[in-house]
Amino acid sequence: MLEDTTRKEISDLGEFGLIAHLTENLPLNNKSSVLGVGDDAAVLGENKKKTLVSTDILVEGVHFDLSFHPLKHLGYKAAAVNISDICAMNATPTQIVVSLAFSNRFSLQAIDELYDGIKLATEAYGVDIVGGDISSSRSGLVISITAIGEANDSEIVYRKGAKNNDLLCVSGDLSGAYLGLQLLEREKQVFLANPDMQPDLEGHDYVLQRQLKPEARLDIVKELKKAGVKPTSMIDISDGLSSEVLHLSNASKVGFTLYETKIPIDPTAINLAEEFNLDPLTCALNGGEDYELLFTIPQADYEKIAAIDSISVIGHATEDIINKVITKNDNSFELKAQGWQHGAE
Amino acid sequence: MLEDTTRKEISDLGEFGLIAHLTENLPLNNKSSVLGVGDDAAVLGENKKKTLVSTDILVEGVHFDLSFHPLKHLGYKAAAVNISDICAMNATPTQIVVSLAFSNRFSLQAIDELYDGIKLATEAYGVDIVGGDISSSRSGLVISITAIGEANDSEIVYRKGAKNNDLLCVSGDLSGAYLGLQLLEREKQVFLANPDMQPDLEGHDYVLQRQLKPEARLDIVKELKKAGVKPTSMIDISDGLSSEVLHLSNASKVGFTLYETKIPIDPTAINLAEEFNLDPLTCALNGGEDYELLFTIPQADYEKIAAIDSISVIGHATEDIINKVITKNDNSFELKAQGWQHGAE
Repeated sequence: MLEDTTRKEISDLGEFGLIAHLTENLPLNNKSSVLGVGDDAAVLGENKKKTLVSTDILVEGVHFDLSFHPLKHLGYKAAAVNISDICAMNATPTQIVVSLAFSNRFSLQAIDELYDGIKLATEAYGVDIVGGDISSSRSGLVISITAIGEANDSEIVYRKGAKNNDLLCVSGDLSGAYLGLQLLEREKQVFLANPDMQPDLEGHDYVLQRQLKPEARLDIVKELKKAGVKPTSMIDISDGLSSEVLHLSNASKVGFTLYETKIPIDPTAINLAEEFNLDPLTCALNGGEDYELLFTIPQADYEKIAAIDSISVIGHATEDIINKVITKNDNSFELKAQGWQHGAE
Repeated sequence: MLEDTTRKEISDLGEFGLIAHLTENLPLNNKSSVLGVGDDAAVLGENKKKTLVSTDILVEGVHFDLSFHPLKHLGYKAAAVNISDICAMNATPTQIVVSLAFSNRFSLQAIDELYDGIKLATEAYGVDIVGGDISSSRSGLVISITAIGEANDSEIVYRKGAKNNDLLCVSGDLSGAYLGLQLLEREKQVFLANPDMQPDLEGHDYVLQRQLKPEARLDIVKELKKAGVKPTSMIDISDGLSSEVLHLSNASKVGFTLYETKIPIDPTAINLAEEFNLDPLTCALNGGEDYELLFTIPQADYEKIAAIDSISVIGHATEDIINKVITKNDNSFELKAQGWQHGAE
């Protein structure tokens, strides 16, 4: 039998396909490995008190553009998005370790700015920086952060766990981060075409902040605890509402019906979407980087969350494993997995 | 007063200087943050059983050269060097999370090879892969691994803790990894000058393996435990014996006197050093990447470790904080910190 030696392209698999391929049948041999790959964070520990671990790698030219991401904001964001993964397990973030690789294009002042942003985020979330590594790189900046958190076993919320008829909730509002990025990229092109032009960012503070300085919703985790609500499933919105709904659906073996009119989008984001001839709903579904929490609760808990600011009920779980959006015109369309193009995220 | 806006170069500080600068006065606010930056791993947890965390970032063109580092070996090495940091705390490695960034130059088969190497290492050390991240990059491969381990509070060994008159010990032998790298780089140059020449690597298996597939000395951690010996201080040798001795000295506030004749170097490494007109002792002191354990024990424990294969006593701690080597000719020289050139490690 001849071996197939044709070069296989990673783009044929997509990001989630590649992760599934690499991590298929990974054994968990240690008693302290409670949960491995497949949720927002790993769950470790033999006692009631568990340790949560999550990691992200951010690469210049892929995840950020230093021509419009200020280094201090970038540091803040890099820490916040990792901390967000711990929040998405209904856990308390406690520590991070920070690895940086950068070329000699970066001065000491530049690295100080970046690190100051990371420190600001750790102060904001009550997290300690406890380690890291530093390396040179041949080109560009890479930031790799691992976030650690803690929670009692009984408090942890996984992607699995949503039940038929549960309410689907989201914190804050969606699409802002994506539209902020569109705006920054448009103004960059204007500037490149004519360096005398000043970027026209006025009146767009909100979407810019959503893109440049997103927050982990640790406040929502605390509010839910205070209200006595433990979500039945939860995830954070890094890749867009559509993708995260599908993750909850896959893990929980339920479907979700969402209502367009219930999906929270800031008015300034709607205006900007129209300026770009984009459908605000599409931006919310596929835009990503809002780092809001998407979670399900039993219907019985509705009254308890109704009092919490900035939580919207946007749909409910169904026995049929079909994920769909009911539009404002009472039409409906199915949510499908988005392909991931290697080199294009 | 005018602000000094002159660009400050990172190379003026060096790696350790930069880390010290960035992490100066980092607060530890969480009760579970027992030890932060400054040892081989952070120590976390409020109970007797502690969690150890260490992270390393490996960058193509800086830490490895894919023209002679096979991807499978590279994966093994990337995992082993992180696991080595957990061993250096006298702890048991239990989990790793793995982040990869790579350009579209890499095929699926290439990433599979790399990941297979990582998996091999996790099997060898009884460690579980519990998470990670995958990203594209504009150029080259970046591997960022965070290793997690566990130990009872009373078992953990720090860099601090060496006492006057303690014996300084090292596992295995030194300089092999560095000489293996010299050999691979020489043969690469020969090949680049004349692609018809085949690399001449015969008879150099040992040093090649030391460079391409180093091992974390978890076996030594276990042997010491079995022998009832808890080192008073410990570190792993990633940057060279000299640098690590200085770390133990700084942390423990003692000096060390080393004896050239006691420093273990494999005969094939000595021969190869002579072929390169290099002093084998210098290779051991400054070469790095051997990932052996350097540790101190009370003199009273000497008999207990004498029976363990592959542990050498190479010197002792002194009250005077001077670090020196007594040469085979009974001369002596002081160990000084090596500068780190950003972009040249």
